[in-house]
Amino acid sequence: MYPSQNIAAKPAYDRILGPFRKDLMLVEDAIQSNFRSDVAIIPKISNYLMDSGGKRIRPLLVLIVSKLLGYEAPADKEDPRINYSVVAEYIHAAALLHDDVVDEGNFRRNKLSCNREYGNQASILVGDYLFARAYEILASAPDIEVVSAMTIATRVMAEGEVLQLTNSFSLKNTEELYLETIYRKTAVLISACCKVGAMLGKGTEEQIKSIASYGYNIGMAFQLLDDVLDYVATDDKWGKPIGVDLAEGKVTLPLIWAYSQAEANDKTFIEKSLEADEVSSEMFEKTLHIIRQTGGLDRTYSKAQEYSEMAKYDLNMFESSSQLDGLFAIADYIVDRSI
Amino acid sequence: MYPSQNIAAKPAYDRILGPFRKDLMLVEDAIQSNFRSDVAIIPKISNYLMDSGGKRIRPLLVLIVSKLLGYEAPADKEDPRINYSVVAEYIHAAALLHDDVVDEGNFRRNKLSCNREYGNQASILVGDYLFARAYEILASAPDIEVVSAMTIATRVMAEGEVLQLTNSFSLKNTEELYLETIYRKTAVLISACCKVGAMLGKGTEEQIKSIASYGYNIGMAFQLLDDVLDYVATDDKWGKPIGVDLAEGKVTLPLIWAYSQAEANDKTFIEKSLEADEVSSEMFEKTLHIIRQTGGLDRTYSKAQEYSEMAKYDLNMFESSSQLDGLFAIADYIVDRSI
Repeated sequence: MYPSQNIAAKPAYDRILGPFRKDLMLVEDAIQSNFRSDVAIIPKISNYLMDSGGKRIRPLLVLIVSKLLGYEAPADKEDPRINYSVVAEYIHAAALLHDDVVDEGNFRRNKLSCNREYGNQASILVGDYLFARAYEILASAPDIEVVSAMTIATRVMAEGEVLQLTNSFSLKNTEELYLETIYRKTAVLISACCKVGAMLGKGTEEQIKSIASYGYNIGMAFQLLDDVLDYVATDDKWGKPIGVDLAEGKVTLPLIWAYSQAEANDKTFIEKSLEADEVSSEMFEKTLHIIRQTGGLDRTYSKAQEYSEMAKYDLNMFESSSQLDGLFAIADYIVDRSI
Repeated sequence: MYPSQNIAAKPAYDRILGPFRKDLMLVEDAIQSNFRSDVAIIPKISNYLMDSGGKRIRPLLVLIVSKLLGYEAPADKEDPRINYSVVAEYIHAAALLHDDVVDEGNFRRNKLSCNREYGNQASILVGDYLFARAYEILASAPDIEVVSAMTIATRVMAEGEVLQLTNSFSLKNTEELYLETIYRKTAVLISACCKVGAMLGKGTEEQIKSIASYGYNIGMAFQLLDDVLDYVATDDKWGKPIGVDLAEGKVTLPLIWAYSQAEANDKTFIEKSLEADEVSSEMFEKTLHIIRQTGGLDRTYSKAQEYSEMAKYDLNMFESSSQLDGLFAIADYIVDRSI
């Protein structure tokens, strides 16, 4: 039984972000005000994507980690954490826009994806705008270390997207390559947000390293669980239909594992499902059955839990505080969430 | 008679870049070494695009303008102009990659465009990588003013691409909107390169402003001539077939002018050519005939010459030097070039 099937984790997440609600409102305002442009379709599309939710986990991490390390927002000028949060969300959103074009995605956050609503061309170019705007905001940051952390993360992310394109559509994909890919495409930016928070809080080198590792681990857990949920989510909070990865021919860990363990005729069946122009619900069910039987979901979910545990281990060096409780709760939430 | 039809301007350009050949070789090396990545397809595609020429006008401008203002490269460390040149070329290349996907381009620099050779998905993602890598390099720049100039330019460029998508495929496009679009998609980055060169040379505020204006003007002239050449280039140095804009349904100044001046039946014919799934060579010839007859090419070419003249006017404040001669020669070359 996986969390999506019976646990509504949303209230837990709401509790974590409770103390940061006011700051997160400032982030929301800044997200909206920074994509204003005299080119009308830019705020329209940006708003379509940004307004449809998203958990704002990246901004939350910047806020909570900086606070953990004693950061106090300046009273006399803008809180730089707001800008860094906007940068992280824009980079994330731009990557989603391009990802949906590349994967020919249809749904995102309970509605048609931007590529379906506004077309590939606009999605590509508005994605470019959001990347560019993120860097423009970042360029005004006073702290060169922060700028460096964010730009390196974004480059690694771009490499991850290419890596995914090269390897993820083949049954030759391996667990090792898969983990490398999800590190790059998902975990690195989440880790960078934690790192930036720790830098703002003037953490020691060791503290910054531990908190970056925490971010890496929850990022990995997050993506692993996402790849489980793609097969088994039953909750409409998931925001898109299940079975998308198989339909797109994307080989994630549940399938990698199943294929490596399956008997010859099941192997052949997996190959066929993956190559099918359209995956019928019978095909999906049978593939899911093979994945369950070979333990592909269990293995992926266990991995997610392992990373979640490692994330908590990274927090050992910090003294207890409500922020630390929040980080523990995020590590739990990541593997319990139903959305 | 337009330059493409009889003037081989390449030798003129070669003369201008003569004194900078050594520095430009360093730029080439840095272009190659900076897109090394363990994700194999990244250097492959980057190299496919970058190795196929391109005039390197942006690096040349950084080099020549900085020298004009007395910049001396540091003897004991890396010349920052090389990195800034790489940044400009990567941003330009990334924009070309995405542009070709959006416009469904087929040819670029005398060979198949990357989207045709490697597919849309890889072109989008490697474009993202080049953008990200450009910013990563930029983040290591010591001069925040330079970083700011480049990031603003890139954001304006992204807006220009969206503006083009929104307006350029309709006969409602106006000369004013067209000029605004080419400023954003082409002139702003060329202007930023000039500005960065002037900043490196520690120019006065007035000098920086004049040289940025020079860059703006040659950028405008460059794009205007490009849009003339798309109709009349006969030289294989052009690197792609003519008539692409009409075939793609892109309404540039020659056609905007023709449409505004044409008689009713010619107007109808233009509408038909633009909407045609495939523009036959007869259709192209007849459209070109209307454009010639109404003076659409003359008007566009005259505009290009005007901008070239304004660019030269911007140079008035500078004392004569071989670099100044070079900048004058570039302003001439831009409207004389056959490539």
